[in-house]
Amino acid sequence: MAKKRIFSGMQPSGNFHMGNYQVLANWINMQAEYDCIYAIVDWHALTSSYEDTSRIPERIEHMALDWLSAGLDPEKNIIFVQSHVKEHAELHLLLSMMTPLSWLERVPTYKDKLQQLGEMGKEINTYGFLGYPELMAADIMLYKADAVPVAEDQIPHLELTREIVRRFANLYKPVFPEPQAILSPLLPGIDGRKMSKSYGNEIPYAAEPDELQARVRLMITDPQRVKKTDPGDPDICTVYTFHKIFSPEHSELAGQCRNAGIGCVDCKKRLAQKMITTLADVHGRRKEMAAKPDKIKEILAYGAERARKIAAATMEEVRSIMHLS
Amino acid sequence: MAKKRIFSGMQPSGNFHMGNYQVLANWINMQAEYDCIYAIVDWHALTSSYEDTSRIPERIEHMALDWLSAGLDPEKNIIFVQSHVKEHAELHLLLSMMTPLSWLERVPTYKDKLQQLGEMGKEINTYGFLGYPELMAADIMLYKADAVPVAEDQIPHLELTREIVRRFANLYKPVFPEPQAILSPLLPGIDGRKMSKSYGNEIPYAAEPDELQARVRLMITDPQRVKKTDPGDPDICTVYTFHKIFSPEHSELAGQCRNAGIGCVDCKKRLAQKMITTLADVHGRRKEMAAKPDKIKEILAYGAERARKIAAATMEEVRSIMHLS
Repeated sequence: MAKKRIFSGMQPSGNFHMGNYQVLANWINMQAEYDCIYAIVDWHALTSSYEDTSRIPERIEHMALDWLSAGLDPEKNIIFVQSHVKEHAELHLLLSMMTPLSWLERVPTYKDKLQQLGEMGKEINTYGFLGYPELMAADIMLYKADAVPVAEDQIPHLELTREIVRRFANLYKPVFPEPQAILSPLLPGIDGRKMSKSYGNEIPYAAEPDELQARVRLMITDPQRVKKTDPGDPDICTVYTFHKIFSPEHSELAGQCRNAGIGCVDCKKRLAQKMITTLADVHGRRKEMAAKPDKIKEILAYGAERARKIAAATMEEVRSIMHLS
Repeated sequence: MAKKRIFSGMQPSGNFHMGNYQVLANWINMQAEYDCIYAIVDWHALTSSYEDTSRIPERIEHMALDWLSAGLDPEKNIIFVQSHVKEHAELHLLLSMMTPLSWLERVPTYKDKLQQLGEMGKEINTYGFLGYPELMAADIMLYKADAVPVAEDQIPHLELTREIVRRFANLYKPVFPEPQAILSPLLPGIDGRKMSKSYGNEIPYAAEPDELQARVRLMITDPQRVKKTDPGDPDICTVYTFHKIFSPEHSELAGQCRNAGIGCVDCKKRLAQKMITTLADVHGRRKEMAAKPDKIKEILAYGAERARKIAAATMEEVRSIMHLS
């Protein structure tokens, strides 16, 4: 049986942090089980930052470096830049014709983000910003993805994609699968809230060992566990959330926490050590790769070529179904 | 000095009437003076009829036949189908990112047409329908058109294009000319109102001589001219509006009307005769051409190839200015 296909993307926002690394770790875990397509979605980045686009090329390169050095395999996965595959724009335009305006207006994140960015002085009440989830639907449908790894806040977008898939099926022909969500919990910030630069609770991806140790020391643990001899609950502990990503022996650690067999200070030290080792490897590879920008370009061109083949076949089918040329 | 460039398009709506013929007559008049690009805008047709697209290919062919048989020269002009040049979708997407939603919402025709089509039972309150003038802006800007022949009701759309051109210039670089309107008055229906099938006042383009004579007989003339001996005012006479298109000697006729030198009945007979002769030629050529559908395809492919060259150069420039790939 053919593997199920996954599509996902990230905006080259120039702000790669540990939360993104976790998403990547998930992607890497999926590369054996699924047929995976991952895009650096530069056109999406325009929805909120069309005013200054000068750093886009650099951010694309940095994102590719982040992905590759973390271990995302460009042979096992298709890794490419959205704007290299023009079919995204064509499908977006065609889908726009059949998408009720109200579907886009009622996406819960729409008004929130509009307000949030408005307060930051960004004027983004544009036609393209309203169409953000439409472009996302086109991205997913272009590859007939069966599933999309998403964080919880992206679920309404994916629900909209499913609605558009159904509408296309009703109007024309059921050629697109309804993509399912593969929910990946967000890595929290060191204070247990959503990791965000604006909360000051993030762990920079490029953090040096000293900084990593300092940030891990500040992490919130189970607040009920006051003394080392109290048993802890790893499921509500920020440190443990990180162990799940960085420590293969995390189940064992969870047991020790529940039995008060390990204290929070030691547990944090072990986490910091794991993170330092893992990230040192990643950063080492990143540095090597950064010295060969042409190689990165080559990898992205190779990914675009593979993506384009699938996209072209989908568009040929869509055009034929819609009686277009 | 290089000729100024004109872009214009028509939706393959399957409803070609004398009003469209007049637009074509204007286009043909311009082919010597301007560098002209004319598109059969099939993607635009989806804004109001995405629900049934089955007749689009036939309508494109018919429109090409209408254009060519009326005398639009595929060598002197670039004649093509919008969806053959994918760059329209890409520029549309990029422009969408910088176009305030309010600019599209306040286009006067938007709410009117929404209501009008809603009353006809068409559910067109879609994202794509709202983006109609955005796609039109992309069409015009893709060819850096200096001017656009438009009817009065299209002026707000063209004004929006100019606003987008200025916004692009302010944000990035002034590479697009602000397209000017070349206003062409609309040919009225036989009752003097706007020609429209829904008013029952149209003259079908394919009308046979008998029908043409009957429709011309019903045309409204100067209502002040009761008797043949009363002087008439050709400027308010529907018959004279048609003479201006079909009768090279129309100035002379206008003089005779003012002097009561010709009566309305005779004047209408002359018009009907002119229309019958002109349209018989056009319809004859159309019939010949319709027998060679491959030739039509070839002409449209040739036009698309020429259009694509210009469009590709523009997009290369736009991508480079916007730091995109």
